[in-house]
Amino acid sequence: MTGKRVLAAGKFDILHLGHLAYLEQAKTLAGENGELVVIIALDKIIEKERGAPPVFPQEQRRRLVEALGFVDKALLGLDTEDHAEIVIQTRPDIIALGYDQYTNLEHLEQRISEMGLKTKIVRLEKIIADGLNSSTSIRKRIIDFYKENGSPQ
Amino acid sequence: MTGKRVLAAGKFDILHLGHLAYLEQAKTLAGENGELVVIIALDKIIEKERGAPPVFPQEQRRRLVEALGFVDKALLGLDTEDHAEIVIQTRPDIIALGYDQYTNLEHLEQRISEMGLKTKIVRLEKIIADGLNSSTSIRKRIIDFYKENGSPQ
Repeated sequence: MTGKRVLAAGKFDILHLGHLAYLEQAKTLAGENGELVVIIALDKIIEKERGAPPVFPQEQRRRLVEALGFVDKALLGLDTEDHAEIVIQTRPDIIALGYDQYTNLEHLEQRISEMGLKTKIVRLEKIIADGLNSSTSIRKRIIDFYKENGSPQ
Repeated sequence: MTGKRVLAAGKFDILHLGHLAYLEQAKTLAGENGELVVIIALDKIIEKERGAPPVFPQEQRRRLVEALGFVDKALLGLDTEDHAEIVIQTRPDIIALGYDQYTNLEHLEQRISEMGLKTKIVRLEKIIADGLNSSTSIRKRIIDFYKENGSPQ
């Protein structure tokens, strides 16, 4: 069986073990000689979604994710909330959705079918990663520490 | 020419492009088929050195660094400030010192020579990495943002 192209996506702002668990699972779906392509959310999309900019600008997040051994390519996302667009552009065999990633599945499946693509959507399981594995808890840890201990030097 | 074993070291707390630049330079020194081994500073050594714990505990930092494509192995450091000890244990051909990493070079060279090792110490150049490339500036960015905008959700 030849490898597949798997698409994963996210913000990846401050890398942590939750990101690794997600991307490693996604890479497994690609099989031998498969390819994992990761889409990095644009700064402006993140700001719109959560009302706060990322810590790391998009090109820095892209380069860090691409430096991971099991990532074959990391690309900046598109300036649209329609996730079908990047799927149509990159034509993956599989879309790996993290356990906490939401998108309009019905719309996505419809667009995929309209375009004649055979892309499958796979919802990954939550892996109980030990340790800090959400960006929110990491930011909170940094802020709480400095509230008690003053500014960073 | 066969590849060499290169030793790099650091805290690697919140990965950024400065870390990548350092480790990529270190890997280049290893040559073809060479091996880059990265030593991750223990939490207790960091706390002693700067009076603050790292954001990520040591095993999480180790796993993130080891996930980088050009890192062959990441090991936790030793509970000592004598950097010669880990060099004697890992017997590298080259020690890659970052431009901002300080150690007692005279002592290190003496111990290396006493042990009959041929390890060379190479001081890497500062690469002007664009963007956020120091842990201090990253922490400051997170804190400043939340001071103005309230707690993370």
